[in-house]
Amino acid sequence: MKVVLAGDLDAAEWVAWRAALAQAMPEAQWLAPDEARQHAAEVHAAVVANPPPGSLAGLPALRLIQSLWAGVDRLLADATLPAGVPVARMVDPAMSAAMAETALWATLALHRGFFTYQQQQGDGLWRQHPQRRADEVNVLVLGRGAMGSAVAQRLAAQGYAVRTWGRDNPAGLPPLVAAAEIVINLLPLTPATRGLLGARFFAGMRAGAALLNFGRGAHVVDGDLLAALDSGRLRHAVLDVFHAEPLPPQHRFWSHPRVTVLPHAAALTDPRSAAAVAAANLRALGDGQPLAHLVDSQRGY
Amino acid sequence: MKVVLAGDLDAAEWVAWRAALAQAMPEAQWLAPDEARQHAAEVHAAVVANPPPGSLAGLPALRLIQSLWAGVDRLLADATLPAGVPVARMVDPAMSAAMAETALWATLALHRGFFTYQQQQGDGLWRQHPQRRADEVNVLVLGRGAMGSAVAQRLAAQGYAVRTWGRDNPAGLPPLVAAAEIVINLLPLTPATRGLLGARFFAGMRAGAALLNFGRGAHVVDGDLLAALDSGRLRHAVLDVFHAEPLPPQHRFWSHPRVTVLPHAAALTDPRSAAAVAAANLRALGDGQPLAHLVDSQRGY
Repeated sequence: MKVVLAGDLDAAEWVAWRAALAQAMPEAQWLAPDEARQHAAEVHAAVVANPPPGSLAGLPALRLIQSLWAGVDRLLADATLPAGVPVARMVDPAMSAAMAETALWATLALHRGFFTYQQQQGDGLWRQHPQRRADEVNVLVLGRGAMGSAVAQRLAAQGYAVRTWGRDNPAGLPPLVAAAEIVINLLPLTPATRGLLGARFFAGMRAGAALLNFGRGAHVVDGDLLAALDSGRLRHAVLDVFHAEPLPPQHRFWSHPRVTVLPHAAALTDPRSAAAVAAANLRALGDGQPLAHLVDSQRGY
Repeated sequence: MKVVLAGDLDAAEWVAWRAALAQAMPEAQWLAPDEARQHAAEVHAAVVANPPPGSLAGLPALRLIQSLWAGVDRLLADATLPAGVPVARMVDPAMSAAMAETALWATLALHRGFFTYQQQQGDGLWRQHPQRRADEVNVLVLGRGAMGSAVAQRLAAQGYAVRTWGRDNPAGLPPLVAAAEIVINLLPLTPATRGLLGARFFAGMRAGAALLNFGRGAHVVDGDLLAALDSGRLRHAVLDVFHAEPLPPQHRFWSHPRVTVLPHAAALTDPRSAAAVAAANLRALGDGQPLAHLVDSQRGY
């Protein structure tokens, strides 16, 4: 099988990904977009990482577009994407585990006051704060996909009082938000979820609650979040994703004392495991078996 | 049973502890040291939190000194402590769980680069670092008591490659230290462990390893630790305990970029659970049953 590998990767990243994929699936031929167009009739699959628009043009035999990234909102927004070709998301247990680690770190830091203690260190201040048990901390996870489920399970295993919410139950959201002191966003970005984390959402949160955004930057209305932090309604936000990435130097998130900025590193794709997941789907394609993790264009992820 | 409650507690803390103890054991009479001396012949037990020297003088009928704190090194160093009266440490699963949370937070932060990302935020720097799996991170826990075991179990449950060491195996320590990238100290402070974390220990650690000290400040030779951090041999230290507490304002740990200072808050005693643990031992005393968690004066904890 000939497979095109396309993405907004620099040369070293492209070579590293091709090496990982070739190791996971040595029987395939891994081609750059220019090479692929020379064998267009034989290229049945694409493995992509936010490919530049037009990367997959001129490949009429494509039967699967397999993403290396979990989020496909940028990919689906590409108007040059070949119409009618199934798109598969990356669903990799190793990436879900990495996300669970990040969510647990941030939850522990908020629950046990470690962000506060780190700020106190900067001020040379020695002061203990009351210590609660994990079961006294209500956490709400938005999103019940692979990532949301992994995070909810990991936090529940540490004793936290975890609730989850999925988009199929809009009326159920307000009471869950009102009860939570930590809200963790792991929703996919769709027209229905864009801007969900705005003034109205924050007004429904408990005073002094915290927001962890590991979904997409466009879930958040930045000005509304800053207003909620400045008013003290929210005590802290841990943000991994932003409207523009890298986060622009002048953005207030960088210097806000109640904001922790991560450089979209909450869960990196591990080529070792992700290549194996992609290879399994390509082999299913070759064998005429059902494909995994296909995007539903109606729901948008 | 009449019980004296003595400690370096302010009035509000003393009242809060008495309330928690009275709830756990309403059949006892809880007395301040001055009251206790007026009923000296009937005071058979003391519940203490680093009592000022002399607090337990003049109580000839004492048959148990139950500490509310896990560490008893300060208590045992008190020359005025009545000789021959059994001393019990506080061993509270809630406190072990709190310690496991703190160790997990710090381990996740080191493993996943969150201390680095927080420093980068201060510099406005957007840069991802390679991400490893938990099973690729070797962690060594020093101490196999209630705290050390709880920490080792919690970290192993997250997938970390955990080894433990106890003082009964001195020859086994160097290879374990050489293999670990994160060393977590949870040893008791005794003449044999004082100053263990000094130049020789650090020279045996892996380059770029990290130290978490949740034991006692006197386990560490501060100047040796600073030298190891400044030379880059150690990349980070998370310190909860110090030779003098509060940590003096001029101490270099406060401002060192590779040191995270916690105000002896890694595991606070929770009065709700600790009072019940103390009450159980006092009832055992009253019933002539075996006492739990007694200090062995030979080994010093």
